[in-house]
Amino acid sequence: MSILVLKFGGTSVGSVDLIKSAAQIIKKEYESGYDIAVVVSAMSGTTNKLIENINLINSQDDAEYDAILASGEQVTSGLLALALKEININARSWLGWQLPIVTSGNHRHSLISKIENKNILDGFLNRQVAVVAGFQGVGSNGRITTIGRGGSDNTAVFLASALNAERCDIYTDVDGVYTTDPRMVDNVKRLDKVSYEEMIEMASQGAKVLQTSSVESAIKHNVKIQVRSSFDPDNMGTLISEDVLNNENQAVTGVAYSKDEAKVTIIGLVDKPGIAATIFNSLSVKSINVDMIVQNNFIEREETNLTFTVPVTDLKQSLQVLEELKSIIVFEKVISEDNLSKVSIIGAGMRNQPGIAAKMFDCLSKNNINIEVISTSEIKISVLIDMAKTEVAVKSLHQIFELDKL
Amino acid sequence: MSILVLKFGGTSVGSVDLIKSAAQIIKKEYESGYDIAVVVSAMSGTTNKLIENINLINSQDDAEYDAILASGEQVTSGLLALALKEININARSWLGWQLPIVTSGNHRHSLISKIENKNILDGFLNRQVAVVAGFQGVGSNGRITTIGRGGSDNTAVFLASALNAERCDIYTDVDGVYTTDPRMVDNVKRLDKVSYEEMIEMASQGAKVLQTSSVESAIKHNVKIQVRSSFDPDNMGTLISEDVLNNENQAVTGVAYSKDEAKVTIIGLVDKPGIAATIFNSLSVKSINVDMIVQNNFIEREETNLTFTVPVTDLKQSLQVLEELKSIIVFEKVISEDNLSKVSIIGAGMRNQPGIAAKMFDCLSKNNINIEVISTSEIKISVLIDMAKTEVAVKSLHQIFELDKL
Repeated sequence: MSILVLKFGGTSVGSVDLIKSAAQIIKKEYESGYDIAVVVSAMSGTTNKLIENINLINSQDDAEYDAILASGEQVTSGLLALALKEININARSWLGWQLPIVTSGNHRHSLISKIENKNILDGFLNRQVAVVAGFQGVGSNGRITTIGRGGSDNTAVFLASALNAERCDIYTDVDGVYTTDPRMVDNVKRLDKVSYEEMIEMASQGAKVLQTSSVESAIKHNVKIQVRSSFDPDNMGTLISEDVLNNENQAVTGVAYSKDEAKVTIIGLVDKPGIAATIFNSLSVKSINVDMIVQNNFIEREETNLTFTVPVTDLKQSLQVLEELKSIIVFEKVISEDNLSKVSIIGAGMRNQPGIAAKMFDCLSKNNINIEVISTSEIKISVLIDMAKTEVAVKSLHQIFELDKL
Repeated sequence: MSILVLKFGGTSVGSVDLIKSAAQIIKKEYESGYDIAVVVSAMSGTTNKLIENINLINSQDDAEYDAILASGEQVTSGLLALALKEININARSWLGWQLPIVTSGNHRHSLISKIENKNILDGFLNRQVAVVAGFQGVGSNGRITTIGRGGSDNTAVFLASALNAERCDIYTDVDGVYTTDPRMVDNVKRLDKVSYEEMIEMASQGAKVLQTSSVESAIKHNVKIQVRSSFDPDNMGTLISEDVLNNENQAVTGVAYSKDEAKVTIIGLVDKPGIAATIFNSLSVKSINVDMIVQNNFIEREETNLTFTVPVTDLKQSLQVLEELKSIIVFEKVISEDNLSKVSIIGAGMRNQPGIAAKMFDCLSKNNINIEVISTSEIKISVLIDMAKTEVAVKSLHQIFELDKL
């Protein structure tokens, strides 16, 4: 019998009525013959309310935090098991410590190291649906652990691997991955398929369908993910899997953007081995998230200009870090600029098609958009531009690469 | 080091502020040198809200019910551990499956069969306060169980026994046990001490301070209970323990009542061995809670009049049961009466003092209160009277036995 893992996010189980709808979705897959394990998040709002209460207390204990938060998924898993029984489907809930889902690492940010599948497989022998509380596991000390926000997606992907499932369907409040942000561009198209790598580039660019860590976990375990809407379950949504052949001819499959970027340039930096490591380590220990990095060497002198981007909220602290480094590194001055956006085109087919970058730069130029910084990977080209021109850039790129005609 | 078990009910941990107040109460006992284990209920309102959601689903699975409900105490135990850390007290939460608290019997109505004390005693070596989630345990199938409403009191009493604690302090929203209902009589007195048996008689008569099952558990394990108010923690409340000597001189220590009683009399019942058993078994299988039973035999005939009382809500069904029995037992007719109250005087000292019953009946007679049924135990005399006269009866009995002068 083939196995499916279905995951329902917080908005998909936000009320008892929605939990009953989820049960109907499960019933349909169940009756088509699959053995099914379900992973649930806490009902939307629950986790935030628990955190509010925790924050009223001025002490921190990550183990207690985990025990408190894990109660949310515990409730949903029980309610969904009851809702399945209501429609005559054999089902039972499983908590992290019961399977168990064994984790390693620190509380609040634990990593799943193993999911014991025996209990679930035994249940399948009786056609029992396993309803697994997401986000939680049990640590080597026997205490409840959690695996960070968005962790239920990771639970689902890991479980799909542990059960060797045919697919992991992630039910959420959007019906798939789009060519770009539907709030910005009218004639967006939903992508039937994207590759893992494309998804990672899109996710890190702001297409908040799936956490990057979940996609990385899917790559590692080779789990096919189907992103689907619980409000439109007949729609198959978007399949995220290994390189998808029929997208190869389509060089560009998505346009992503992130606003409120800032650019920092260190001018006249005396370049020595290890100098970049010193700078970026110093930024990293302050938890400053550096994104694009560009370096222009002046051949004739032993000096360089080093440019990097950070979220505008980290700009002030970034400049402070560089000021403090003045005693150990030599440079002429630091200049910075905010009100910038990063716009990216993404596509696995880009590898095999020359001229994509030229076409992108030409399009931006024709729209009078100046490019501040360029950064590229195998399947992505990103540019830093004036934030005021974000929408024009995204719309024109979406059109020039014919994403509305997919 | 002496050990205390403190239990905080739902209204005593109903908000984060109240949880912080509970932490202060614990701190005071802790700093006076005790090792402390705390048992907590769910925050008031939480359990009912969970049950509401469960009731929106038309299926029953007691194991899921338990898993869902146990989340309430899980949250409180974590929050209280955090609140203790906030005031620099070493503390950690323990769930039923972690200690473990092993239960037997059916879900929703499990019985604690063992509390493993090793983890808690190990923590005491580091002066760590154990914050135990009440109401829950783990069954032999590895699933979460609950021990019925009011179960956190039972958890506390059992834990006090398992730890050989000096005392079990039950913090609630009343500050002890009173000579009668303060809402009915003005000059009530709080009792410093009552015996287990007195408490059971008072509890079953409507003094809703402690569930009867908790007192029975305290007797079985010989645990001293101190009922205290979390809103007035300097007040020692009422000690419930073995026969309390200094109450022996006081024949009567309390007046209890319950309204809305109904009386059923079977007239001309042809008495044969086993006839009463047949009747009361038939009522019992319908979950009808029969209270007082009085039988008057007519010596000259083989007939009897059998009278019993039931809550008025069970009257109709009781009459139906008797109607159905007509084919197997012989009687003349059944008469019934509602709008009755049961009023009781209670006191361990009653055993040694004659004339108490006479004094009670005389008092009622002087107040023109007719007695319908009398039933007595070693430490209690109960009468059934017209419900309209409940208040007069309670007030006059409270006065005649000088309970206002205790």
